[in-house]
Amino acid sequence: MFRIIQKEVEKYGYLEYGASPLEPSELYVAKTGEEIVSQQTYTFIDRGNRSVTLRPEMTPTVARMVAARRRELGFPLRWYSIPNLFRYENPQKGRLREHYQLNVDLFGPSDLSADIEIITLASNILKAFGATEKDFTIKINSRLLLRELFDSFEIPEEKRQSLSKLIDKKDKIDKDLFNAGVKELLGEVSHEFLNVLSVNQRITDRLQSKSVGLKQMFEIITALEKQNIVNVVFTPTLMRGFDYYTDIIFEVFDTDPENPRSLFGGGRYNNLTELFQGDPVPAVGFGMGDVTLQNFLLSRNLIPKYKSETHIAIACISETALPHMQEISTQLRFMGINVSTYGLAKQTGDFYKYALKNKIPYVLLMSENQGEYLVKESDLGGSEKLCKSLEEIAVLIKENK
Amino acid sequence: MFRIIQKEVEKYGYLEYGASPLEPSELYVAKTGEEIVSQQTYTFIDRGNRSVTLRPEMTPTVARMVAARRRELGFPLRWYSIPNLFRYENPQKGRLREHYQLNVDLFGPSDLSADIEIITLASNILKAFGATEKDFTIKINSRLLLRELFDSFEIPEEKRQSLSKLIDKKDKIDKDLFNAGVKELLGEVSHEFLNVLSVNQRITDRLQSKSVGLKQMFEIITALEKQNIVNVVFTPTLMRGFDYYTDIIFEVFDTDPENPRSLFGGGRYNNLTELFQGDPVPAVGFGMGDVTLQNFLLSRNLIPKYKSETHIAIACISETALPHMQEISTQLRFMGINVSTYGLAKQTGDFYKYALKNKIPYVLLMSENQGEYLVKESDLGGSEKLCKSLEEIAVLIKENK
Repeated sequence: MFRIIQKEVEKYGYLEYGASPLEPSELYVAKTGEEIVSQQTYTFIDRGNRSVTLRPEMTPTVARMVAARRRELGFPLRWYSIPNLFRYENPQKGRLREHYQLNVDLFGPSDLSADIEIITLASNILKAFGATEKDFTIKINSRLLLRELFDSFEIPEEKRQSLSKLIDKKDKIDKDLFNAGVKELLGEVSHEFLNVLSVNQRITDRLQSKSVGLKQMFEIITALEKQNIVNVVFTPTLMRGFDYYTDIIFEVFDTDPENPRSLFGGGRYNNLTELFQGDPVPAVGFGMGDVTLQNFLLSRNLIPKYKSETHIAIACISETALPHMQEISTQLRFMGINVSTYGLAKQTGDFYKYALKNKIPYVLLMSENQGEYLVKESDLGGSEKLCKSLEEIAVLIKENK
Repeated sequence: MFRIIQKEVEKYGYLEYGASPLEPSELYVAKTGEEIVSQQTYTFIDRGNRSVTLRPEMTPTVARMVAARRRELGFPLRWYSIPNLFRYENPQKGRLREHYQLNVDLFGPSDLSADIEIITLASNILKAFGATEKDFTIKINSRLLLRELFDSFEIPEEKRQSLSKLIDKKDKIDKDLFNAGVKELLGEVSHEFLNVLSVNQRITDRLQSKSVGLKQMFEIITALEKQNIVNVVFTPTLMRGFDYYTDIIFEVFDTDPENPRSLFGGGRYNNLTELFQGDPVPAVGFGMGDVTLQNFLLSRNLIPKYKSETHIAIACISETALPHMQEISTQLRFMGINVSTYGLAKQTGDFYKYALKNKIPYVLLMSENQGEYLVKESDLGGSEKLCKSLEEIAVLIKENK
C-alpha cells in the first residue's frame, strides 16, 4: 500500500524525510492546550525531568525542522514522510494506539499553484489505487473567505472562534441546537447569517467581486477541473479542527451514502513555522491515515494485491543438489532477480505451500546438475515454462513483474 | 544509503517488517537484568502504571513477533527492518540517543545454510558499497565449539559465564590482568587453557575430529571461500556480548590498522523465541548500525553519491507559460519521470541553484508554447540536449538514471 503512495508522491518531486517519534510536550501544548496534550497523547516525564510526548501528529515536527534549516534548504521544498503517530485513546483502558500516516508538505510558494498541486496529489493517490471520482468528493473551503464573510456580518473577533467551532460541529449536532447556538452568539443577525451560509450562491452574492477568498476559490476549482478533477465542491461549512490553517482547507469524503465518512484532509498553514522564530514559511500539506485509507479501499474492493518483492523460490529434491541450487541462486541475483532459497524439499507440497504463503510468484524445483529449469507459477495455475537457461528465467520474471 | 542495503537484502528474498518502538520493559529485563534496562534504556512508567521502554535493540521484538505468529508464517522466513533504536547514553546529561539499525533475520533452518547465507549477505552489503575484502575482516567463532573446549578442560558450569565475559574483554584490558583473571577462575589449568586458546591449531589438536563445533566452523569457512569470501578468520576469543547466541557468531572488523574497530555482527540464537512460549524457532541474524557503517564508508571514501529520486526540475520564464509547464510536467510524470515544478523563475540563476541544492540531475527552463526543450544537467557541466519531444526527455533521463 505504501509503495503505491510513495511512487505517486515521488512523481511530483517529493523527498522522504524522517524524525524521532519523541518530542518535547511544549510543541503540542502551545497549539492545542495542556489538557488535550495530557489527555489524548502519550506524555510522560523523562529522567531529565522534562515532559516528552510521542508525536500525535507530524505537522508541528516538520514545521520545526523546516524553520530550523530554513537557510540551507532549497525552496520550493517538497517533503513527505510516513511516520508512526501515537494517541492515548481511552484513559480508562490506558491503551496506546499507534498508526501510520502519510504526510505530504510543500513549503515555499505562497501562490495557489501549491494548493492546486497538493489537492491534485491527494486526488491522484486515491486514483492510483483505482478509485474514480465517483468514489470520493473533495470538499474545499477557505479560511480567508470565512474571515471576509464574518467581516461582512461585522462579527466581533472574540466570537469568531466559538462560531467556527460551532460550524465545525454542524453536521454532527441537531439542527435546532446548531441554530440556537448561532443565535446565542450572533443575536439578531443570526437568521440572515444562516440563510447566507446555507446556499453557496448567496455567499457569492454577498461577498461579490471584492472578495479575494472567493476569487481564489474559483481559481482553484477551475484549475482542478482543467486537470479533470471535477469532484471538488466548495463547502463553506468545512472547518477542519486544527487551528494552524490560514487559507485554503480541504477534506476528502467517501461518497458512499451509507458511510459518507471523512477520509483525510489538509490545507495551507502559512504561520506555523513562525512559532519557531524567524519569518514564516508558506506551507500547504495533508495527512492521510493508513487505517481510514485501508477501510475505504476495502469497501471499494481496491486493496492492492500484495506482491512479494521476492520473485522466485528455489528448492532442490536431493541433498547433493544443494550447492547447485546456491550457485544458480547467486547467478540469478546477479541478473537482478530476488531469490529465496528453500533448501531441501523433503515434501514438494510443503515447498509449494511455502511459496504460496509468502506470495512468491514463481517456484523452481531442482535436481542435480540439470541444464533445463521448469519454472512454475506458485499458485500452480497450470502455467509453467521450461527454461533452457538462467537468462530465460530472468526474462520470464521481468516480463511478468 | 538505506536503498542500497534494501536492494541487497531483497535479492536474498528478505521482506520488510515493522513494529512499534515502545515495548514492555520486561522484554529486556529478562535477558539483560533490571539494572542495565533502567540505566541504559529510555524506560518510564505510563499512565496505566506499566513500565515501558523505547526499544534499544530489535532482536527481542522480532523474536516475539515470530513466536506469536509461528503457525501462520511460512518458513524459512526471511525478514528485515531498519528500525530506530534508542539508548539513554549518559544519565548525567540525560540525553536520548536515537539511531537506525538494519536488522536481518532468517528463521527456520537449523542447518548451516542459514549461517552461511547471513554471513554472505553481511559481506555482500559492504561490497555493494564498493568495499573489498581488503577493507574488512569477518571474525567467526562458535559458542558450541567454546562449550566443547570448556568441556575438554572440565571447567565447571558456574564459572563459564565469568570466563566468557573475561574472554570478551580480552582485547580491551591489559594482558597481565587478563591472565590473572583466568588464573583466578581456573587455577592450575589456566596456563594450559591460555596456551591452547592463543593458537587455533592447538584448539584443533585438542578437540580433534569428535568436535561438532570444529566441523561446523570448517564447513562454514569452506562454503564462504567457495563464494569468494576469503576474509573470514576463525577467532576463538570472539564472544559478542549478547547472551542469547547459541552457536555460530561473527563480527565484522575494519582492517584499518589505525582504527581496527568493530563494524557489526550477529549469529545464531535458536532459543530466543522459546521465551515467548512454544517450541524454539531456529534463527540467525545480524544488526548493522547506521553510524558505524557511515563512518566506515566515509573513511574509505565509499559514501554513495546522494541521488535525488526527482529526475528533473522545470521552471518557466514567464507567467503565461505556467499552464504549459504544468501540462508538460503531468505528461512527463505519466511517462514515469519524477518532476518537481519550480514555477516562475524570476532569476534563472536561483532556479539552477535550487536544482543543484536538491541534487536534481536535470533542469528545463520553458517559455510559452515551445515545441523543443533544452534539457540541461543541473550542475551546468556543459552537457545539454535539445529534445524535440517529451519522449526524448524521458529517454534521456532513463538512460542516465
